[in-house]
This record gives sequence, structure tokens and C-alpha cells, in this order.
Amino acid sequence: MRLSKYYAPTLKEDPADAEVVSHKLLMRAGMIRKLTSGIYNYLPLGLRSINKVAQIVREEMDRSGAMEVLMPMVQPADLWRETGRWDYYGKELLRINDRHGRDYCLGPTHEEVITDLVRGEIKSYKQLPINLYQIQTKFRDEIRPRFGLMRGREFIMKDAYSFDKDEEGAEQSYWTMFEAYKKAFARIGLRFKPVQADSGAIGGDFSHEFMVLAETGEDTIASCKACEFAANLEKAKVAQPKGLCNCDDDSVPALEEVETPGKHTVEEVCDFLSIPASRLIKTLLFVVDGNPVAALVRGDRELNDVKLRNLVGGNDIEMADEALVKKLTNAPVGFAGPAGLNPEVPIYADQELCVETDWVAGANKGDTHVRHLSLGRDCTIEKFADLRVIEPTDPCPECAGEIEFTKGIEVGHVFKLGVKYSEKMEATFLDENGKAKPMIMGCYGIGVSRIVASAIEQNHDENGCCFPPSIAPFEVCVISLGGKDQAVTDKAEELYSEIKDLGVDICYDDRKERPGVKFAEADLIGYPMQLVLGGKGLKNGIIEAKNRKTGEKIELPLEGFKEAFQEWRTAVWGDWGL
Amino acid sequence: MRLSKYYAPTLKEDPADAEVVSHKLLMRAGMIRKLTSGIYNYLPLGLRSINKVAQIVREEMDRSGAMEVLMPMVQPADLWRETGRWDYYGKELLRINDRHGRDYCLGPTHEEVITDLVRGEIKSYKQLPINLYQIQTKFRDEIRPRFGLMRGREFIMKDAYSFDKDEEGAEQSYWTMFEAYKKAFARIGLRFKPVQADSGAIGGDFSHEFMVLAETGEDTIASCKACEFAANLEKAKVAQPKGLCNCDDDSVPALEEVETPGKHTVEEVCDFLSIPASRLIKTLLFVVDGNPVAALVRGDRELNDVKLRNLVGGNDIEMADEALVKKLTNAPVGFAGPAGLNPEVPIYADQELCVETDWVAGANKGDTHVRHLSLGRDCTIEKFADLRVIEPTDPCPECAGEIEFTKGIEVGHVFKLGVKYSEKMEATFLDENGKAKPMIMGCYGIGVSRIVASAIEQNHDENGCCFPPSIAPFEVCVISLGGKDQAVTDKAEELYSEIKDLGVDICYDDRKERPGVKFAEADLIGYPMQLVLGGKGLKNGIIEAKNRKTGEKIELPLEGFKEAFQEWRTAVWGDWGL
Repeated sequence: MRLSKYYAPTLKEDPADAEVVSHKLLMRAGMIRKLTSGIYNYLPLGLRSINKVAQIVREEMDRSGAMEVLMPMVQPADLWRETGRWDYYGKELLRINDRHGRDYCLGPTHEEVITDLVRGEIKSYKQLPINLYQIQTKFRDEIRPRFGLMRGREFIMKDAYSFDKDEEGAEQSYWTMFEAYKKAFARIGLRFKPVQADSGAIGGDFSHEFMVLAETGEDTIASCKACEFAANLEKAKVAQPKGLCNCDDDSVPALEEVETPGKHTVEEVCDFLSIPASRLIKTLLFVVDGNPVAALVRGDRELNDVKLRNLVGGNDIEMADEALVKKLTNAPVGFAGPAGLNPEVPIYADQELCVETDWVAGANKGDTHVRHLSLGRDCTIEKFADLRVIEPTDPCPECAGEIEFTKGIEVGHVFKLGVKYSEKMEATFLDENGKAKPMIMGCYGIGVSRIVASAIEQNHDENGCCFPPSIAPFEVCVISLGGKDQAVTDKAEELYSEIKDLGVDICYDDRKERPGVKFAEADLIGYPMQLVLGGKGLKNGIIEAKNRKTGEKIELPLEGFKEAFQEWRTAVWGDWGL
Repeated sequence: MRLSKYYAPTLKEDPADAEVVSHKLLMRAGMIRKLTSGIYNYLPLGLRSINKVAQIVREEMDRSGAMEVLMPMVQPADLWRETGRWDYYGKELLRINDRHGRDYCLGPTHEEVITDLVRGEIKSYKQLPINLYQIQTKFRDEIRPRFGLMRGREFIMKDAYSFDKDEEGAEQSYWTMFEAYKKAFARIGLRFKPVQADSGAIGGDFSHEFMVLAETGEDTIASCKACEFAANLEKAKVAQPKGLCNCDDDSVPALEEVETPGKHTVEEVCDFLSIPASRLIKTLLFVVDGNPVAALVRGDRELNDVKLRNLVGGNDIEMADEALVKKLTNAPVGFAGPAGLNPEVPIYADQELCVETDWVAGANKGDTHVRHLSLGRDCTIEKFADLRVIEPTDPCPECAGEIEFTKGIEVGHVFKLGVKYSEKMEATFLDENGKAKPMIMGCYGIGVSRIVASAIEQNHDENGCCFPPSIAPFEVCVISLGGKDQAVTDKAEELYSEIKDLGVDICYDDRKERPGVKFAEADLIGYPMQLVLGGKGLKNGIIEAKNRKTGEKIELPLEGFKEAFQEWRTAVWGDWGL
């Protein structure tokens, strides 16, 4: 491709609304343009990268035995009513009426459609397993779309759905996808990590997120320096505390109220009473699927509400509002405690609260706390369990090794759905004994357009993008500095043709621009390999070759160029682990 | 691909709602499934064909110098308000409100979005011409979606938009696309014809439709047996009539009223008066952009309202309703005539009315006609022009050769838009003299999913689809009749691998089905080449090769198979003109 005829409108300045580096660089490199909030045009360079990601994903999906289909974007509401999600999904589901007034939505995901498709066709266990996928445009009406392709409303996703006849098959389908994802991300050339993720009501270890590691990531990953353990913060187990259960220690002095006027926060109360936060119990009130519950954690810990929701066994969790707190505690917010709480509220306590005793907590009375609290003596605890967020000082829950926190961008998710959709939608098959059973499903997503953004978040410098060669808009850029020197131009043309004939994805900067402009734009767009030919180089029989990732420049001889180029190219791919 | 693991659920019966053959066969062959009215899932086989069409189109677009982009499906209403189409487009434009209540639509076409994209970036004539295209899912809320992929609501389209600095460039862009379309359709292997189409207010010869020829087509094409002339019926010029203008012949007897009680139609009046329909003038009243106009054609001719609209120079034409007819003629419907019509209504007459005189026409009076009408003497004719629909008995308007009518399916359209959008949206550039000018646009569409349906409409028989090898779901199907004969199965596996290694797109029917089922399904799906291996064949060292299009069967030797297969394959492609 000759850049003189190419549509890649670069920008000198960062756009005002771009907060993250991938958004800035995608705009500046002429890869995307905003149409409206959270909705982007993909320009030729951007689409090339997206298509390369899609093609790698497609190849690995095909290799895994999954089959590509394409489902519609516009979906009838009736299917969503069958699963209950029409009411449950919230405003991210963009609802539409057609000219006849019928209800539809723009598909944010396709569980309903695929289940409907399959239930019409699959009748027997002999037709299972199957795994169908698509690469398709999705729409989610995010309340605050931002960060360019990182959190858009319209975006490109690969979504796959597996159907199995039994648990064993479903697990196998799950791990087949897990391996296919690992291969795909490895081929894309990004540093990534599969991490354990919350699997909600399904339970088990059948939910993993694939994280591209980047300092700018929104997600936090807890991983072990010694073993393979890695988990999303909301999922990461906390190791059981050392020490025996101490709840029923009867040497604790009797419960005693202390006045703590106007002291609401952990910090205020601990300062006032001159105790460390680790001696205080935080009592947090939630509503899970409509029912109030209380959760206790140490004052210096953070409650993990996903763990609480899973423990209670609900779908939906939210903090109790002020009115409910007052109703349940007979006190303003800030003075809830486990002793004397409304007895209809079950109390769940973090596991480490059982190895200590003699606590300070709220008194369920305005401006008052209690001390000498014994959980065994003074309250009824429904269950002690792992309820808090892991901390870097915690030991690895699997090997007791050292934990580290890193940041990541979620670009893939594999998830065992079980029979959640197939039961509601009556997607059944006849098993070996002629008995109708719901199919066991899994769903597997990859954010195709998001991967391009996350590649930039992970790989960039002050001059622009550093794309891995597997997904760069062009793998190589030939830059001619010939100006009016026809001999240089001729040679550049020759090299361009020669490399193109090798099957290399190359572009040729034949524009009448100053060398500085050409260099800057090549770095901005982030072609992994840049070949620079000028009058002096031609005279000396060399072309300068620059590795965008390492910045390293070497000279390739024009004589025997092809071999030298191929060798260098292999080395550059190698720098990306490819 | 092994069919034992493939998802291609065929049907034995035609679906009840399928009216046309492509809809029936796409459903029966397991290529598509309906989600809801006019919205389909593309199953693996169907998607393969669609992707092959898309890839051929993409390659020819790239070769022509156009660049691929991808624009959003969800478009903001504001852009459509700029061009006035938000109000004008009608109910096919599916309108949406997002969570914040802002207006959007689902893109039925992308003139607004592309013009918005380009106006932000193109500043100078030096950046022109450019041509940007996309292959994308469109939505048109058809009032009565039908015929499967032929007239769906959600469908896949290639749309391209060119931008030029002057007329000459715009014409060149137009003809470049015209040639690219010819190449693409030729490579797809369909019998097609580019035909002149109506170019509305733009005028000139800058609108062509590409028609796939099929008896079941909804469009009628008038083409010349002797020369290259071919046009959509609504566009086809009618040759000038022979003979001199005879309007002012003053030998015609004086105008005379005749009573024609209850005679409304041409047939009734002519029967009653015992005259041929060619002696009567039909007077038709229309409203063009809000203004009434009258059009005259001979009683045995059909008015072409597109020609009338273009002659008057309007955007929108509709028949006058009964009330307006009464108001303008002072008579019930059926008695309008050019003499004595409300003088504010301009009268346009078909060109052939000028070479004859002494007509019968309506009298603008109930139950009354006039005879001895002379258009020159008795009325004021605004203009004589070509206003009627061509007939098979008409001579070719270009070479006077014989005209024939054929049926076609529109699968492509090239159109010069001029400055219609760029003026309204202020998409201007600075020309060589620093003067701001609107870019001159063209738009070019190909119905990608529709091509697959039209390929079936053109090529099928009582057993199923006959796909051209270029776009068949698989080019070759190996059918093993081995049953439990391991030697046959092994040989079939070997052939399958061997052909796959040649880079041929092949599937292998390794299912445990009866031979009859395998043959029937292979014909139904329409693989262009079928290779059948059974025990007897293996013993005799041959494999049976069937050409789906011609039905011809030959025997290929297992010894030296590769060469024999390649020779046969070349011949089969040749049967498709490929």
C-alpha cells in the first residue's frame, strides 16, 4: 500500500476528550474517529488491526472445533422475556420498537438467540457437543462510555457458546476454550494472564478472565510469585487465618457501652478510643435479592461483596440505604453492630474474626459503641467465611507464597453457564435413556476491538504505538527519503515490491513529506519494522532498519537484501516472543 | 471439514412461510434460520458462502484503489437532520432512543456518516479523490419483509462512497467502480447484466444497476438483442416516434362532446365508442413535490412516473387522490382530459402524441368524453417528452434493434450523487485557487447476503442448490460409502487430506448415514463437485466424480488421482465460465 494514496489522517494534538493513552494514540494515528459518544468509525489502519486480531481468533476457534455463525444484531424481546433478562438487564440493554410497535433490543450478548437457535435443531445426545461462535458488533448502552475503544457502546466481540450433554463434557468444552484462548493471545503477542474470576451462582473454578497486563488496566490481579495462582481481586480467595477458633473465650469482660459522640468512621472511632483498626469490627448492611443481611469484617479490611453475595446465594447485592440502616439498627448510619441487631437479619462474619475476641463494634444506638464484644457470647453468627478482599500482605491461598498485585485489562472471559439458560428456554435433548435433559452451556467472549486498544496500553512510548507485528496495521513500512532523487525512489519501489512479493504485509511511504514527518508518523502509527532508504544509504549499498519496539537500528545490505531482511524480520518477531 | 462434526441441520420439508426458491433452499440446506420477521441467523454453511462473496468483493474493491473502513450501525439523528432525511426517510428508518433519551437510528445506509467523517479530515484538493467502503450489517424496517435473504430487514451490504474534486474525477470514480463491479460479479460466476437505472435529479447516465438474471427476479430489464443497450424498465428510454409533428393539423373537425355514461376505463370507453385504445388519450393526474401536474399517454400505453418526475424536476411523486381529481376536473375520476382542465395544472404529453391528432379524451365532465381533440388547437401542452414505459415491440432507443424483456434481481447499484450530501453537510475542500467547493460524491452498493440468495434463484433444480464453485459453502464434497469397510474409509480419509492439501475448500461426509441421504444432502446443499468412493470403486481403482451443475458423472482413477482431479476441477470451473 502506498501511503500517498492512503487514508490515514493523523493528528498532531491529543483530542480533548481522550483520557487514556490508547484513546489518544488511536485518534492521533488516524485509526479511529468518534461518531458520537462511545461509537467510533474504524479507519483503514484501525480496521486492519482489528481484522488481524479477528483472524487469529477465528483460526484458533476453528482449530478448537468451534463453528462460525453470524447472529442478528436486532433481537426480539420475547426471547429475553423467556429468560427474565428483559426486566433484569437494566438500561445497558438498548430497547427498540419497530414500525409495528413490537419490542426488540440491540444485542449486548447472544445467550438467548443461540439457545433459541439450538433448541430448534438439537434433539439427541448424538448431536452434542457443539460449539458455535461469531465475530460480531455488539451494543451496550453504557451510562458513561469512555476511554475510546476500551469502553465503547458499539464494539466488536467474538462470542462462543458450547452445548454439552453432561458435566464432564461441559468441563472439557470449557478447558478446550481456555487452551484456545491461551493460543490466540499468545499469537497476538501480548503479555497476558488467565486469572480466576467470579463464577457467581455456578460455583467451581469455571470462570476465568484473560487479562492483558498493563499499568493502566482497570482491573487488579492478585497473583502468587511462587505458584500459578492468579485471580481477579473480586474472586481471589484469602488463606484461612492461623490460630484456633476463639469465639467462645469466656474470659472476655462483660459487654460495655462507650459513648462515641459524632464518631462514625473506623478511623474516628479508633482514634477516639485509642485502639488499632484491627481491634474494631465493621458491620456492613446489604440487601441481597431483596433481603437484608449483615456482614462483619475487621476495621482494617475491605469487604468483598461478590463473596458475600455468593455465600448468601443471591443474584443481586446492594448496600442498604440510610432508611433501612436506621430501621434495622434504630440508630443513624455509623453505629451498626452485631450485638442487638434486628434478629431477622442474618449475620455473616469474615473468617479471621473467629481467631480473636474482645472486639469493639457499633452499639446499634446513636453515638455509641460497645467494647469487650465476644461474637460467640453476644451475638448469633450465621456463618464464618472468607468475606474480605485479599491484600498484598496476605499469603497465597494455594501455596502460602508471596502475593503481588498487578493491573490488567480484561480482554477475554470463559464461563460455564450450566443450565441457567437451557432450563428457562427449554433447550433439552434426549439422553441415552430417552430422557429429556437441559443442555449444559458455556459462554466464551473475546473483546476484539478492545484488544487493539489494550495492545497500545501495554506497548507504547512517548512517540506513539508499538504494535506487535501480528496485529500491526502494517508489519513493515518502507520510508523513502529520495525526494527528487529518482535513483532512490526507484530503489525504494523495487524494495517495496520485493518485500510484498515475499507475502509480507508492507506499506510504502512515498509521500512528498519531510523526513521528520515520515519518521514521526511511522513511530506514531507504530509499524514494528521500518526500512529507511536515502541517497547516502543507496550510495553505500545499505538500508537502515529500525525495530520500533526496541528502538534498535541496524544496516541491511542492499546486496543479498532478501535474506538479510528475513533474518532481521525473524529477530523482530522474536523480540515479541512470536 | 468433517460433516460428522458439522452443524448443518437440513430440513426435509419446505418451511411454510417460504415463497421463493432461494428462501426454501437456504432453509432446507441448513444455511439460515429465521430469528424473527426479516431477520435471520446465518448458520455455518450460509456464512461460508456469504464470506466468500464478501472476500471477492473486498479484493476487487481493494484492487480498484478503494479503502476499507467500518462505520457504526447506530447513527446519531443530528446527522440525518442535516440532510433532511430524518423527516424524509419514512418508516424504513428504525429510530431509537438511548438511555439518555437522545435520538439515533439503525443505519440503512451511510451517506451521512461518511460525509461527516470526511468533512472533518479532507481540507484540500490534494487529498482527493478518495473512495472508502465497508462491508457491514444494515437495517431497513421493511413493512413486509419476505423472500428470506432477498428482502430482509437486517442484511449484509458492501457500500462505498467516492469523493472527487471535479466532475471529470467523479465520472472517472464512477466508471472505476462500474468496472470493479463487473469483475466482482464475473468472479462470483453469476450471469448478470449492468443496466441503466434512474439517476433521479442528478441526470445523465450515472446510475447503473447490476442485475443477476433469473426468471424469478422482481425487476424487468429491457435490453437490445443487437447492441449493448440494457435498462431497468423505469429508466429505459423509448425511441422517438417516426413521423412529423402533427399537433397543429387544422383539418381536424371541431371538438365535440360525446356521452359515455358509466364508462371509466380505457377499455370501456373504447368499446363503447368502437375505437382502438391507440386513438384515446389517457389523462393522469399526479402531485409532484406538492404541485399537481397532468400527464398524457396513449390509451394502450403505460405512463412511466419516474420519467414524469424527472421531467418535472421533483423528488416525490404520487397519484392525485380522488378529491384532488374532482377539484381539478370538476368531474368524477375517469373523465379527466387535457381540454378544459384547470389552467393551473401544467400538462406534459408523451412524445408519440405529437405525431398523431384527432384524439378521444376525457371531457372534465361526468359521463362525458370529447372527440376530434387536437392537442395543438384545444389545449396548452407544457412539453412533449418521453413519458411512457417501453414495450417489447418498441425498437431499441440506441440502434433500433429488437428489444427483449428479461427478469433480474438487483444485487448492485452504482450512483453518482453529485453534491446532494456534501452541500447540505458542508463537506467542502479548497481547490487549486483556494476556493471552497463541495466535494462531488458517488455511492456504490452491493447486496452481499442477497447475492447468495440470487445465486440460488439463478442456479437450482428440483434437488436443490447449484452453487458456483467460487461461492459454494464448500467447493468439493467427498462422500464415503464405506460403511464398516475400513479400507474404503481409510482411502476416503486419504483423498480428503490430499485434496485439502492442494488448498481446495473441501468437506468430507464421514457420517454414518445411508448413501441415499448423503447424495440427497450433497445435491440439496449444492456442492459443485462431489467425489463418491465405495467398495466397488476402490476395488476397480476409481472414484466417481459428479458435476452438480451439469449432472455429468465421470470416473477418476485413484492412481494419478491428483492430476486427474485437477483437470476435472478446471473443467467444472470452466462450466461456470470461471
